[in-house]
Amino acid sequence: MSRLTIALDIMGGDHGPHIIFPAALTALQQTPHLHFIFCGPLTVMSKWLDKQLPDIQQRITLSDCPETVAMDDAPGHALRHKKNSSMRRILDLVENNDADACVSGGNTGALISMAYYVLKTLPGIVRPALVTLVPTLNNGNVYFLDLGANISCDSEVLFQHAVMGSVLAEQVAIINEPKVGLLNVGSEEIKGNDQVKQAARLLTESKDINYIGFVEGNDIFSEKANVIVTDGFVGNVALKSWEGLVNFVIQEVKNASQRSWGSKVLAKLAMPLFRSIFKRMKPDQYNGASLLGLRGIVVKSHGNASSKAYLYAIREAIQQVELQVPEKIKDRIAVVLK
Amino acid sequence: MSRLTIALDIMGGDHGPHIIFPAALTALQQTPHLHFIFCGPLTVMSKWLDKQLPDIQQRITLSDCPETVAMDDAPGHALRHKKNSSMRRILDLVENNDADACVSGGNTGALISMAYYVLKTLPGIVRPALVTLVPTLNNGNVYFLDLGANISCDSEVLFQHAVMGSVLAEQVAIINEPKVGLLNVGSEEIKGNDQVKQAARLLTESKDINYIGFVEGNDIFSEKANVIVTDGFVGNVALKSWEGLVNFVIQEVKNASQRSWGSKVLAKLAMPLFRSIFKRMKPDQYNGASLLGLRGIVVKSHGNASSKAYLYAIREAIQQVELQVPEKIKDRIAVVLK
Repeated sequence: MSRLTIALDIMGGDHGPHIIFPAALTALQQTPHLHFIFCGPLTVMSKWLDKQLPDIQQRITLSDCPETVAMDDAPGHALRHKKNSSMRRILDLVENNDADACVSGGNTGALISMAYYVLKTLPGIVRPALVTLVPTLNNGNVYFLDLGANISCDSEVLFQHAVMGSVLAEQVAIINEPKVGLLNVGSEEIKGNDQVKQAARLLTESKDINYIGFVEGNDIFSEKANVIVTDGFVGNVALKSWEGLVNFVIQEVKNASQRSWGSKVLAKLAMPLFRSIFKRMKPDQYNGASLLGLRGIVVKSHGNASSKAYLYAIREAIQQVELQVPEKIKDRIAVVLK
Repeated sequence: MSRLTIALDIMGGDHGPHIIFPAALTALQQTPHLHFIFCGPLTVMSKWLDKQLPDIQQRITLSDCPETVAMDDAPGHALRHKKNSSMRRILDLVENNDADACVSGGNTGALISMAYYVLKTLPGIVRPALVTLVPTLNNGNVYFLDLGANISCDSEVLFQHAVMGSVLAEQVAIINEPKVGLLNVGSEEIKGNDQVKQAARLLTESKDINYIGFVEGNDIFSEKANVIVTDGFVGNVALKSWEGLVNFVIQEVKNASQRSWGSKVLAKLAMPLFRSIFKRMKPDQYNGASLLGLRGIVVKSHGNASSKAYLYAIREAIQQVELQVPEKIKDRIAVVLK
């Protein structure tokens, strides 16, 4: 199999190299044709690389980036002033075909702005979308987008996001004719704002999308749809609120366990059971998120990701390269828009 | 204490009289000066009333309503064609000062439309808002609005909703200078859509509101704010998604408990602990929701409410009557808008 190269933003995320290096090492062990380009300050990277086995050293290239995009940098500021940052470098490497894909756990807003500027959208695509996998009943998943790449989406953007989500579900999750739902305040046709109603018309008319109609908030975690589309404001608030809710439930369990000796023992015993469930409930932290609709593959790992979660983000990037996701989106959009 | 009269829509909700009658009975036992006007089909109501003690019978008036608003009736249809429905009657009774407040567990969209039409908004108020209490860490609560009374909200409506939520937190929850946050995709000033940014400016300029700035989805369940304001699309989707998430977690716990003999025993033992937590997590089902900004008190019980949850809705109505919530909102709006 031919060499597959992924550029990693070593400085992105709350824990930086500390969790990224072990994840990269595991990925190299699992995927023989994988190579990495590490982007970050040379001293940090070479210090670690010097300690690795020769085989590993040969599969990692270091790209010195003196600048770092801070988690609180405004996207516009990062775009204009952080041209030598590790985040910018990974995108430049993809743009120049030196890398097949890139992964960052850094500032999401800055990553979206830079990726949009450096890589540009695919022909016909108006705006990129940020998507993640959300768990559903019976060990299922649903692709949920947009998570905040676009604060407001007109009907055309919502429609295109539905097409992109559908391609991802088909190609990566291997679902035949994935069911696509539009998130709304009710399931009846008359419900919702103008953008959603018009997007529903576009999706109903399109023969290339298996559009199932409006879905409501409580349908997200059911098995009703394989792809759920909403604008970036709603998607961002919803996703973050689930994280808040799960943290709240965990805290409540801890508090409840303090109430009596019996509940303390029970909670302690049952905790592993619930921890495994709760972990699934932090979708973007566990799976990472992908930018769709660009002329290159960009995977966003959660800022607070563990090594294991970062490894998922790397694997997602590998999968999208092997399945040629951008090309598939380009082809589908061409068919749908013709 | 003078007589306090509440009109109940006996036919509203998934379980109708079956859960409403017991809730009403408990409320009468708890509140000596309380009277009810039951609105629904006479046969159903009188059959139940005949079996009650004379003291109870004297405190309930029956109002025969041959029509019922169905859960799937379009709001416009209900408004035009269900003038003899139990839902319409409770609102007419409030409008005519025959009742001090009303409670329905029926079709939310129809109730909002009818209430807006029959009762009208308070002077200066552009649109009513639907609000509920959401649990937060350390046994706290936050007033969360709008839940879907207004699909899109301009900055003025968001601002007014912040004022109304603030009055409710002050009067009902007795919080001094309640902290009011605007829900957004980030906490920085530059984040969000135009409506949210402009509403933030209005709130910052107002000296009558303790505005704390933007809050994100993950802040909702924290103790950051006492009142969180968003538009009805976001609020509706978020609230329903939490219900979906909690149901999903409960189902996952059940599934996990089937995996082995040990986990079966553990889950069974720990279930009561978690059930008490999960119950708090269905905010509108547990607390009901209130329509704010109208010239009368309207409380919406969850369609799927139990008797206990319906009793909460009745108590909420009693509290709002005793605290004269509409008058307080009217006074505050007059001060803020002057």
